[in-house]
Amino acid sequence: MKAYESLLKTYLDYQSKYPFNGQPAELYDPANYILGLGGKRIRPLLALIGAQMVGDDTTTSLPLAHAVEVFHNFTLMHDDIMDRAEVRRGQKTVHVKWNDNIAILSGDMMLVHSYRLLTQLNVTDKLKNTVIQSFSDMAEEVCVGQQFDMNFETSSDISEDAYIRMIKLKTSVLLAWSLQNGALVAGMDVQSAEILYQYGVNLGIAFQVMDDYLDTFGDAEQFGKKIGGDILENKKTLLWIEATKRANAEQLGTMKMWSDIHDQPDEKIKVITALYRELGVDGYARDKMEEYFNVAQKHLDTLPSNYDTHILEEVADNLRSRQS
Amino acid sequence: MKAYESLLKTYLDYQSKYPFNGQPAELYDPANYILGLGGKRIRPLLALIGAQMVGDDTTTSLPLAHAVEVFHNFTLMHDDIMDRAEVRRGQKTVHVKWNDNIAILSGDMMLVHSYRLLTQLNVTDKLKNTVIQSFSDMAEEVCVGQQFDMNFETSSDISEDAYIRMIKLKTSVLLAWSLQNGALVAGMDVQSAEILYQYGVNLGIAFQVMDDYLDTFGDAEQFGKKIGGDILENKKTLLWIEATKRANAEQLGTMKMWSDIHDQPDEKIKVITALYRELGVDGYARDKMEEYFNVAQKHLDTLPSNYDTHILEEVADNLRSRQS
Repeated sequence: MKAYESLLKTYLDYQSKYPFNGQPAELYDPANYILGLGGKRIRPLLALIGAQMVGDDTTTSLPLAHAVEVFHNFTLMHDDIMDRAEVRRGQKTVHVKWNDNIAILSGDMMLVHSYRLLTQLNVTDKLKNTVIQSFSDMAEEVCVGQQFDMNFETSSDISEDAYIRMIKLKTSVLLAWSLQNGALVAGMDVQSAEILYQYGVNLGIAFQVMDDYLDTFGDAEQFGKKIGGDILENKKTLLWIEATKRANAEQLGTMKMWSDIHDQPDEKIKVITALYRELGVDGYARDKMEEYFNVAQKHLDTLPSNYDTHILEEVADNLRSRQS
Repeated sequence: MKAYESLLKTYLDYQSKYPFNGQPAELYDPANYILGLGGKRIRPLLALIGAQMVGDDTTTSLPLAHAVEVFHNFTLMHDDIMDRAEVRRGQKTVHVKWNDNIAILSGDMMLVHSYRLLTQLNVTDKLKNTVIQSFSDMAEEVCVGQQFDMNFETSSDISEDAYIRMIKLKTSVLLAWSLQNGALVAGMDVQSAEILYQYGVNLGIAFQVMDDYLDTFGDAEQFGKKIGGDILENKKTLLWIEATKRANAEQLGTMKMWSDIHDQPDEKIKVITALYRELGVDGYARDKMEEYFNVAQKHLDTLPSNYDTHILEEVADNLRSRQS
């Protein structure tokens, strides 16, 4: 078993020991259901990796690792309502399996629960307050990111900077916060933990750009979901933004035309993917990804050498070379 | 100006100094909008009353007073979606004025913001943690209460105990928490503050039973909303629950029949109100109300005499004698 797999097992054991428990069932069952759908558990894993860099005992960071996973799943539950998504990880979304009201309220309860877990941390009161304060800042940023994402759906003029800011807020800050605060509660000094935060933000952006890339250029079987979903939804990904910059009038016309066509999905994916390749935005996205991976690594290189980064780099390499 | 009006003014001044501020507007405008709709501001008022019992300087408790008002308005924003309510305080609800997605996300942000306000309290780290921990417990109870309330809509067999537990969770615990913790952060001892909590819980139940009573038996002009709304919605109020207990087979048949009639609102209100009077459940509700007011007062009587309770009793008397 690789070192990070052992950390993952530690988290999953903890999670299975603390299911949501209470009445009425309509409030708590959806929380257990969405947490049970699986996923990479990258956020709790980052929290425990941060802790393990300080020492082998990750016990103190476990409630925090669970808090970030519960928080993440709260955002998924509410985002699925907003996106009218019907399927998550091959199963019905909560608002489909139950209904919108239950998904709203159960999500609210999960957000509260993530705070409850943080209040149970076995650290000094001062550190606990620091953690809860920055958690609130991060949580608000995630809300801001989600609102920008929704606004982008009806906007046709989105700069790359605005896009990167959106994915940073919606995705990266939670990854970064998990790593930083997993380390902090295990006893890492504030300055070093801040380096981990900066590392995590850039890793998160790389990770999301990769998602965009794989959604169009990935291998269907390995990616685990239908290739071309973003194209069908006219999502303003990095690929789309860069393509509109590079396209000539005729190519822009093609993009515009296909954005209004919804009844020829296979042809739409084929045409737009070909156009992306013609414009070289596949290479551009890969370059961007590398750029952010490299910035992340540069931050990590400044970390004092007494902190062992090998598990972190192992996980980052895994992410970097993934096809799914 | 009465003493409590002066406290209310202190809070409103504070609120107006700290509007939600940020981008995107879709996230923050709804929060300012719903807070701007007015209301009795009973929760922040209770927080400041609690503080004032300890000393005249309520400054320390102001962020907490604002936190409970922001939290309350988050619950209103989400409840209005769940209830498909179109009007609040004579204005459009947030999900009508904007849309469901914005109301979900803006509400989430407000919940996070209420925690942020608590992390900014100028008290010891230990006390701050105690406050945030019990806030989380209380917030989860409010979610539980709301889910029970939704479940009651489709249930025809609700005991008075279950009903009282629901309104306690949905309404009272927040009122009680506000009073208790406004006092705690101002320096009240834990035991005395716990007395205030017990007082607040019972006051809150009395308050909600009164709402039920006034919705059917109040004076339309003074009550400020249409009389009989609960009857039209077939709401399982204390009046309804007690009526089903007291009714004979024929009267139960009448209740059942009218619950399925939606196109004769005035007649429906008239018939059911008359039936309630015939069964004496108006008097029963008034007695219940008094019972909870009295239990509340008994708790208050055990408070050490160095704490001046006159503003609290002034407000409670106001609530008790209100017709709206």
